[in-house]
Amino acid sequence: MTAHLPVPADFAPAPDAATRARWLDADRAARPARLVRLRERMASEGVDAWFGVRPEHMRWLTGFTLGPGEKASAGHSGEFLVGPETVTVVVDSRYTIQARREAPDAAVEDIGYDLPGAWARLMGATGAKRVGMEAEAIPQAMWARLAEAAPGVELVPADGWVEAMRALKTPDEVERIAAACAVADRALAALLPEIRPGVTEHDLALRLEWLIRTGGAECLAFDVACLAGPEAALPHGSPGQRPVLDRSVLLFDFGAQVEGYRSDMTRTLFVGEPTERDLGVYGTVAASQQAAIDAIAAAVRARGAMPDGRAIDAIARAAIDRDGRWPAYGHGLGHGIGLATHEKPGLSRSAPETPLPSPTVFSVEPGIYLEGEIGVRIEDLVHLDASAGVCDLLTRFPRDVIALGV
Amino acid sequence: MTAHLPVPADFAPAPDAATRARWLDADRAARPARLVRLRERMASEGVDAWFGVRPEHMRWLTGFTLGPGEKASAGHSGEFLVGPETVTVVVDSRYTIQARREAPDAAVEDIGYDLPGAWARLMGATGAKRVGMEAEAIPQAMWARLAEAAPGVELVPADGWVEAMRALKTPDEVERIAAACAVADRALAALLPEIRPGVTEHDLALRLEWLIRTGGAECLAFDVACLAGPEAALPHGSPGQRPVLDRSVLLFDFGAQVEGYRSDMTRTLFVGEPTERDLGVYGTVAASQQAAIDAIAAAVRARGAMPDGRAIDAIARAAIDRDGRWPAYGHGLGHGIGLATHEKPGLSRSAPETPLPSPTVFSVEPGIYLEGEIGVRIEDLVHLDASAGVCDLLTRFPRDVIALGV
Repeated sequence: MTAHLPVPADFAPAPDAATRARWLDADRAARPARLVRLRERMASEGVDAWFGVRPEHMRWLTGFTLGPGEKASAGHSGEFLVGPETVTVVVDSRYTIQARREAPDAAVEDIGYDLPGAWARLMGATGAKRVGMEAEAIPQAMWARLAEAAPGVELVPADGWVEAMRALKTPDEVERIAAACAVADRALAALLPEIRPGVTEHDLALRLEWLIRTGGAECLAFDVACLAGPEAALPHGSPGQRPVLDRSVLLFDFGAQVEGYRSDMTRTLFVGEPTERDLGVYGTVAASQQAAIDAIAAAVRARGAMPDGRAIDAIARAAIDRDGRWPAYGHGLGHGIGLATHEKPGLSRSAPETPLPSPTVFSVEPGIYLEGEIGVRIEDLVHLDASAGVCDLLTRFPRDVIALGV
Repeated sequence: MTAHLPVPADFAPAPDAATRARWLDADRAARPARLVRLRERMASEGVDAWFGVRPEHMRWLTGFTLGPGEKASAGHSGEFLVGPETVTVVVDSRYTIQARREAPDAAVEDIGYDLPGAWARLMGATGAKRVGMEAEAIPQAMWARLAEAAPGVELVPADGWVEAMRALKTPDEVERIAAACAVADRALAALLPEIRPGVTEHDLALRLEWLIRTGGAECLAFDVACLAGPEAALPHGSPGQRPVLDRSVLLFDFGAQVEGYRSDMTRTLFVGEPTERDLGVYGTVAASQQAAIDAIAAAVRARGAMPDGRAIDAIARAAIDRDGRWPAYGHGLGHGIGLATHEKPGLSRSAPETPLPSPTVFSVEPGIYLEGEIGVRIEDLVHLDASAGVCDLLTRFPRDVIALGV
């Protein structure tokens, strides 16, 4: 157990304005090279243009930024066409001012709410005959209207190209993820004194959200999960009016967003004196997580090929199986993170058997779930940079057993 | 101007647990008749089954409920197939417990993360040969995989069917929208004493959100817009670090969600003594809104056909044009609201020229925007029930000029 409880001052303060400005400058400076790489991919796949619709791609390639809840009402605003020479961001009149400010290196075209009506013109201006499209994100009806709007232009499914590029993180991207981790670390540390039996999951989740959003984050990375006692055994679950119980666990899974980049962490705390069984479960999950992290660190030290995400998942799972007392988690071991909460690389039983990308950032989050009794998950973000010899935890909140109110 | 500032006690308190339980019972009791009407539509359009993917349709037809941020990570969980006799909700293992609890009248089938892998079996079990599909919401790549998974089954675009049904509101649905309006009314009333020059948009928006989420709502209907001075002229805009200015306006556009149903309101307040010009703009917008509401009320009293949403928009717009000093809003006059923030019916220059549905609930929100100077919008929700002779405002916060700190 920890000798003292973590306090907010244990963690890095929120980034100052100069740091934030430096990050935005780094983004703008990096965009031309990102576009060069996308155009290389376009050429190798035989398409003349690529049409992007995902908000995280918009921000990374053009600078146009939508808040998490905004895509639903933004229509096509921010969607963009990358041609051989130009990038065109389409908007409706509500977003022209914002797009010109945030995407100064792109052409901004007001198409109103009518993408099909503008499609032939966009294609003509680029001279595109084969366009790569995010088929996993564009609705079937819209795809059909675009195909009809410019019958001479072939629409080619082209998913995952930017995801693969975004898996590789630059130092300023890693700094932002680390800053988001620190905001989350500090918020949980500030919440600890407020956790006691009888307080509800709902009230603690709301309070933790408030601490994050007033502590340097522009928003949450995703809704806070706060699950008490047996509820923690649900791999998915929303905070309810259930009270925190004495001699039981309390699981928080949450993240912050700082200048676009996200964090994700899970801590399972004990309220009151832990039972022998519960300490055993915790120790086994902690050992599983450490085995996975050790394996990655060893590969980095050996300066050889990186392991694949399936092998790392198997190592974490084997640690739980070797213990033999409880079943291993049914979900995957981890996921990449950056502008999106879940991105490449994946670490799971179905992950590709190709070496992990580097430099990159991903979560390591094994768990044990005993339905109706207890759930324990521990999740940290790992920064892997093989050529720099780096395998660091960006999450700094202690992983030791923390028992509150004993 | 108002004689006294509104205070929270002016508005209805948050609904109690018994009321909330009654609403959930009413939902469950109403679902069989909703399915009967959907099956009538299916029969008239010549399809054997209908596949729904939108969260608001899931809740309305099956009871399965996803939070606003959850759809992104929920995979296919909650999507559902309505056959001639059965309703099947598909889930992955994270959601089986929740689906059985919330959708007790449906069959719940764990398909993991693989909808195409389960598609032929789902089709076989229903005997469907032609399936209505939400083509405006299903990605092209998924559509192609489903078409390939059961080549003998024709996929037919079938959008808007449930939207048309959901436009008609039952009394318990209207009660919940009214309750969401009251939560929002009370929250703004509680915020008024905290508004003064120098406070930032960001801090006021966060504080208003907190008041809503601790005042009886399970979440926001959408992100709070709080725009000070000239920023209020942006029909779209996010709260920033801009301070509230003296002798200027402050625009709030926000809503609450109560047991699934949403509210939406806009108030434009004055900070300090309003200028003559700004009072003029406000008065013209208020007159425009009143002209639209009066026209609907007159049609209800006349017991004739309801006007269409295009005609009502034209009446509000004409009131601003007649004044002649400032241009009318570029957006639409209003939108239906319920489980979604924007739904049928629409009131705008492009709305269909068919009578408004009844009973229904929609917003009336004219505005005047002078770029770089001032924006004023006033938005209230109207409950229209022609056969009951009802044309009521569900938003109860006063629409008079409110000048703070004078």
